[in-house]
Amino acid sequence: MNDLYPPLAAVKEAVARALAEDLLPLGDLTAALLQPDVEGVADFVARADGVVAGSACVWETFSQVDPSVSVRWSIDDGAEVREGESLGQVEGCLASILSAERTALNFLCHLSGVASLTRRYVRAASQASQNRTRIWDTRKTTPGLRALEKAAVRAGGGVNHRGSLSEAVLIKDNHLGGISMTVAVRRARLRWPGRMIEVECDTPEQVDEAVEAGATIIMLDNMAPSMVEVCVGKVAGRVPLEVSGRVSLDTVGDYAATGVDLISVGALTHSAPVLDIGLDLIERR
Amino acid sequence: MNDLYPPLAAVKEAVARALAEDLLPLGDLTAALLQPDVEGVADFVARADGVVAGSACVWETFSQVDPSVSVRWSIDDGAEVREGESLGQVEGCLASILSAERTALNFLCHLSGVASLTRRYVRAASQASQNRTRIWDTRKTTPGLRALEKAAVRAGGGVNHRGSLSEAVLIKDNHLGGISMTVAVRRARLRWPGRMIEVECDTPEQVDEAVEAGATIIMLDNMAPSMVEVCVGKVAGRVPLEVSGRVSLDTVGDYAATGVDLISVGALTHSAPVLDIGLDLIERR
Amino acid sequence: MNDLYPPLAAVKEAVARALAEDLLPLGDLTAALLQPDVEGVADFVARADGVVAGSACVWETFSQVDPSVSVRWSIDDGAEVREGESLGQVEGCLASILSAERTALNFLCHLSGVASLTRRYVRAASQASQNRTRIWDTRKTTPGLRALEKAAVRAGGGVNHRGSLSEAVLIKDNHLGGISMTVAVRRARLRWPGRMIEVECDTPEQVDEAVEAGATIIMLDNMAPSMVEVCVGKVAGRVPLEVSGRVSLDTVGDYAATGVDLISVGALTHSAPVLDIGLDLIERR
Amino acid sequence: MNDLYPPLAAVKEAVARALAEDLLPLGDLTAALLQPDVEGVADFVARADGVVAGSACVWETFSQVDPSVSVRWSIDDGAEVREGESLGQVEGCLASILSAERTALNFLCHLSGVASLTRRYVRAASQASQNRTRIWDTRKTTPGLRALEKAAVRAGGGVNHRGSLSEAVLIKDNHLGGISMTVAVRRARLRWPGRMIEVECDTPEQVDEAVEAGATIIMLDNMAPSMVEVCVGKVAGRVPLEVSGRVSLDTVGDYAATGVDLISVGALTHSAPVLDIGLDLIERR
Amino acid sequence: MNDLYPPLAAVKEAVARALAEDLLPLGDLTAALLQPDVEGVADFVARADGVVAGSACVWETFSQVDPSVSVRWSIDDGAEVREGESLGQVEGCLASILSAERTALNFLCHLSGVASLTRRYVRAASQASQNRTRIWDTRKTTPGLRALEKAAVRAGGGVNHRGSLSEAVLIKDNHLGGISMTVAVRRARLRWPGRMIEVECDTPEQVDEAVEAGATIIMLDNMAPSMVEVCVGKVAGRVPLEVSGRVSLDTVGDYAATGVDLISVGALTHSAPVLDIGLDLIERR
Amino acid sequence: MNDLYPPLAAVKEAVARALAEDLLPLGDLTAALLQPDVEGVADFVARADGVVAGSACVWETFSQVDPSVSVRWSIDDGAEVREGESLGQVEGCLASILSAERTALNFLCHLSGVASLTRRYVRAASQASQNRTRIWDTRKTTPGLRALEKAAVRAGGGVNHRGSLSEAVLIKDNHLGGISMTVAVRRARLRWPGRMIEVECDTPEQVDEAVEAGATIIMLDNMAPSMVEVCVGKVAGRVPLEVSGRVSLDTVGDYAATGVDLISVGALTHSAPVLDIGLDLIERR
Repeated sequence: MNDLYPPLAAVKEAVARALAEDLLPLGDLTAALLQPDVEGVADFVARADGVVAGSACVWETFSQVDPSVSVRWSIDDGAEVREGESLGQVEGCLASILSAERTALNFLCHLSGVASLTRRYVRAASQASQNRTRIWDTRKTTPGLRALEKAAVRAGGGVNHRGSLSEAVLIKDNHLGGISMTVAVRRARLRWPGRMIEVECDTPEQVDEAVEAGATIIMLDNMAPSMVEVCVGKVAGRVPLEVSGRVSLDTVGDYAATGVDLISVGALTHSAPVLDIGLDLIERR
Repeated sequence: MNDLYPPLAAVKEAVARALAEDLLPLGDLTAALLQPDVEGVADFVARADGVVAGSACVWETFSQVDPSVSVRWSIDDGAEVREGESLGQVEGCLASILSAERTALNFLCHLSGVASLTRRYVRAASQASQNRTRIWDTRKTTPGLRALEKAAVRAGGGVNHRGSLSEAVLIKDNHLGGISMTVAVRRARLRWPGRMIEVECDTPEQVDEAVEAGATIIMLDNMAPSMVEVCVGKVAGRVPLEVSGRVSLDTVGDYAATGVDLISVGALTHSAPVLDIGLDLIERR
Repeated sequence: MNDLYPPLAAVKEAVARALAEDLLPLGDLTAALLQPDVEGVADFVARADGVVAGSACVWETFSQVDPSVSVRWSIDDGAEVREGESLGQVEGCLASILSAERTALNFLCHLSGVASLTRRYVRAASQASQNRTRIWDTRKTTPGLRALEKAAVRAGGGVNHRGSLSEAVLIKDNHLGGISMTVAVRRARLRWPGRMIEVECDTPEQVDEAVEAGATIIMLDNMAPSMVEVCVGKVAGRVPLEVSGRVSLDTVGDYAATGVDLISVGALTHSAPVLDIGLDLIERR
Repeated sequence: MNDLYPPLAAVKEAVARALAEDLLPLGDLTAALLQPDVEGVADFVARADGVVAGSACVWETFSQVDPSVSVRWSIDDGAEVREGESLGQVEGCLASILSAERTALNFLCHLSGVASLTRRYVRAASQASQNRTRIWDTRKTTPGLRALEKAAVRAGGGVNHRGSLSEAVLIKDNHLGGISMTVAVRRARLRWPGRMIEVECDTPEQVDEAVEAGATIIMLDNMAPSMVEVCVGKVAGRVPLEVSGRVSLDTVGDYAATGVDLISVGALTHSAPVLDIGLDLIERR
Repeated sequence: MNDLYPPLAAVKEAVARALAEDLLPLGDLTAALLQPDVEGVADFVARADGVVAGSACVWETFSQVDPSVSVRWSIDDGAEVREGESLGQVEGCLASILSAERTALNFLCHLSGVASLTRRYVRAASQASQNRTRIWDTRKTTPGLRALEKAAVRAGGGVNHRGSLSEAVLIKDNHLGGISMTVAVRRARLRWPGRMIEVECDTPEQVDEAVEAGATIIMLDNMAPSMVEVCVGKVAGRVPLEVSGRVSLDTVGDYAATGVDLISVGALTHSAPVLDIGLDLIERR
Repeated sequence: MNDLYPPLAAVKEAVARALAEDLLPLGDLTAALLQPDVEGVADFVARADGVVAGSACVWETFSQVDPSVSVRWSIDDGAEVREGESLGQVEGCLASILSAERTALNFLCHLSGVASLTRRYVRAASQASQNRTRIWDTRKTTPGLRALEKAAVRAGGGVNHRGSLSEAVLIKDNHLGGISMTVAVRRARLRWPGRMIEVECDTPEQVDEAVEAGATIIMLDNMAPSMVEVCVGKVAGRVPLEVSGRVSLDTVGDYAATGVDLISVGALTHSAPVLDIGLDLIERR
């Protein structure tokens, strides 16, 4: 599997947790009404256009509920799907299929929702910037699902900002206080050699200071596109610039048009609506 | 704590998982630049109007990061907050506060988002039905967060549909096949005495059959308001009726106006945007 | 697998826990004396008559200890076994078989004990009531084994009362206090629509009140059979009635003869003696 | 705490698991009907005579459900309690008390059941042997509860046989095969120096061989009391002797009268009925 | 697998933990640069002479990262490997191989380091004592790795002292205080029948007392070889003797030459340097 | 606590795991011989000079074994301790102190060993380079202890290289293959914007290429000091340089004297001998 898929360990653990939520202690009361030897074939069908992510969670869900159910998947994470199109099929014990259905869909619809929203931002930013500006995610992820959501962002065409507080330095106002940005960057470089050291700036003057200080990336915080443009001009490619704040699907093009390198969007992971996908029973025997 | 709060066990486990995602293995690289004896006071401030949920996760997050940070909370889950209003304050080691900030906010903003969206549906349904129609959630929850999201729905004024497949019987088309609804309900009543036995119906005729069969609740699936009205008239209060499918903030009032008992909305938990809440540092010493 | 078996997730986790108890840190000191290439065939043999449950735990135990040991099982959960009869065989590395033996038997004997005791109550109740009265379990389960024990009750022919406090409402004296049963039931129906709302009653008068209040099931608490009979007559099938308290194998027939719908028996899960099953080595090579 | 109590880690983990079984995902539906500010005092009362064990699980249960509930315990594990006697009281939020009640009682009643049954065997063995013969438990424990049940056996006055397969060597027929008992014991002593090396014997002749071989303890398997007496005479105190198999409350005295050192009883942990203990609400405010 | 390998459960859990440390949340950033269809063959090669242990962790690591990678292992745990020799090969998706490499090597190099150091002590002790004196490990293991390290000691030819505090009695000065060694041993024998009861002695006089008291093994604490020799002579084989303290590769031969039975060495598990093993890519396609 | 301490979550989990290894299922058999009301005071005393790390694990161990034991700690992680000096004291139930002793020491001695070895490398590198050259750790950590060992390196004065594969890009030979280093760096920068992108170089020519390619740090792999010096001269401070391979306490000074920025040493975490620290009982009452 390529890097649009999350680490297997994250998939296994998240699925186990979700199934425990849905099946314990008595199992699926309703599926218990079916004869255990009834088999079925069911089809995952997109009910809207979007980008697929979370397939590995689907496979893992069926495997954990009943390893005898077979899954034939016909689409890669990151691929676009059209309303009415099939993503794949499952075949086997019908009771098992119905018991796994909702958990599998909860993952698939949520993560495809993240990928789909990401793709819209990516498209808008690319068009406005001749493919220069990239869409970055944030640490505003759903608790417990970070690895899965960050992979879904990659599936959508976005790139991942730091995975955790433990990965990179991001100096905001609150981290200063008595010391200058320059001192803070120097300290960070000494303490955490080699790391990305990003500095949050509110004004073009701060941007100058951050470049001087040796920030490896600069966040332009809550600036209007016009001010971003000034900063892009000043920095002239010496340090990558990130736009953060005030970004929506309406404004992302304006920001991208400034030539900024990265635009971070918390909404990718904290407010993406699901991509509607259903599981249709197409055969029963 | 009242029942608008989730079980403590669910809070502790979800917070531990989220902190592990964000702080391991090296801790907060940036907060490490602060002197450990710098203290601060910070204020949770709503950046938009909404309904609060998830407070227990905030308290637990600070407690797990650094038990010496004190939290003074000034609003109950389920209460409304206005843009600019404070929800509570934390005081103590500034590095600890900043390290815990994002995890605490990820819970608070997501769960308050669920509660806020629920409240909007609840309002619309109540107004259109003279407080008769209730808003019901679904099993379309974010994997791993079911207990927390279902509590947030309660905080928003909604009520909880079954917590899991193990809790109640909900007979859909796929569970039949060769046997009639009547037989299925009878089997369910024998197998799972005392349980809610809900039956999904697509037509008024099926509704008649379901009433006869002894369903304890009937789901009207994907019906237009006018057909719902017909069903409400037919059933005449003998069995509670649930509307499911096609419901949005635009249509919920029309459905409620039919006098139906319950309207279930998957979007409450699968597609609620966050409520924007920030943590402002208001003192540093 | 049909619904007489517990959810797979519950089996896997319980077995992993049990093996950790028995094999860590040094493994099986005694089996280490065997040559690793010695193989064996062993036979699970009932040492008494009873009903089988817990087979899935046996398969899982061998699989977790040594996936190369093969298990051939010849009896379904819920089936009766006679003293001396074989339930199944395992074949493979003898050291692995001996290391897994006790853990596998601990599950099998305990859960078959639950199923066997249940079957005795079920038989007695059925005979006295022309198959009308069902045996119900309780939440008095062994901590950590609820899913497995509730499945064993089903294997024994019993039915499951609520799986947890989170599943249904059961109003006892202690939940009232200032408010009437009628108010309590109304509140419960509003708060938890569709749920089973059971009410505990000590007298026929309370039973009348509970029926009026709309209880979906009524528990007759600690009543003598004669008073149960009065209640059955009064209610006349409008609401299912449960007998609880004072029930033993000696009295269950008397209670069932009243025509009550359900008799709950805590002893099924809290005091069932094991069904004696052994593992006999029948071949060694 | 003395050694009649289990390790704290075992208590915390078992309680967390049990509460998750009973309270997730929605919490206690019924307790939710109470006003959260109603407080109560409740009394743990024995409904039968017996020996107490599992108190630490009670304290931990209330602490995990609601740390503000206070527990005042008035009896030590291992002490005898009479029908009607109080074991301790809890005081605080009534909803929390009721939510924790069943989990606390499930531990307390089961573990006190183990201790009580153990005490009966201990009494019978002591009386028949002038306090010489001790009662030993086995590895036939309830999966997941070994640490707690073995502590309950100690509370009952019994002693613990090996805690796991990893702790000691117990050579049975199946472990031999081609090699003599003497060779097996020698191998075991080399492989696991210092360990208890117990050998299972079916005849007095085997007992002679086991003594010669240097077994540190000898298990007399399924022998009648008269044959046990022969073995006790032969061994004459050189090696401790254990009786195993055929032991019940009816026969334990006969075996003890032979002067054997230890009698192991699987039923202590696999078939002990609960000690009936209830929680009575004695004040409400 | 023979008893030089740890219980499978310990392997699975330790590997899962280690992979979570190294791959979450974003996976292997560098391997993501490879095309997912590039395959490779890589060879585990010893960079120094030593004894192999931990192979099961290697197999499990690749299995958890990517079950499609095949592992062909050519050496048993406990076997000696020479610098430049191959231990085994892995073949499959190159990105998966590189992602698993470090975790697999961390286990293999550490555990082989433990086995290799053990082997050196074992050799020295055997030579000086005509194979009489055995090397014993201690509870000074790396937290979380006890089962794996104790197996590595066995692979190195050493034997395992008690696996935990729960397994055997070891009476040191601090456990006495007011009571004599004789009383302590008697209490221990009563409380924990059948167990190893080791007593720590500082002088030959204490050794006499310990023998009298019935210790099943005696630890000679921090004695010079000459004093050990005195004790060995006194005890004359009645009770096994352990040397503890002051033991290094330089002195172990002198201690063994005294004829003592066991020499315990904490350094086996707390201070063993790794055995240097690398993973060489030998084919790429 | 400052950043020389690991995240609290890592401490709690590692301690819980270690205590489970040492105390389950029966607890501390030997401490059970003590009267539970005997109290003691014990002193952690260094038996050699070194640097302290792991104190938080000590506090947590006593807290998890028995919260009533008090710990008074008198030294910070990162401070030097001399042979015979006290690090802190514990006071309370003697049985609890003895039960916790070994687990607490296993953490403290191992992590202080890591810190002490790090300090020696740091000293040597600083002296030879006028404080320019820093000591870097690696991913060659003990499985399960990465967060704790990386904190111990910081306590020793070293700095942390990437915490995991998920944190930074490190391009080695095996990651190329058909593509040039320049292409690889460009891909990495696109895929993982802002990240450290380190490139492994074997020759000065590769170093030139890596600088051109835009590597943010360059690893000089297995070079002699003289060749390192050439590279340092060529690069002239444009990109930080890391020496890796062939480094020991004997050679670290030679490498540092070249003026290189960072020297990575796997031995810090994979082969550090323990710092010998004991727990002396100084009072008993």
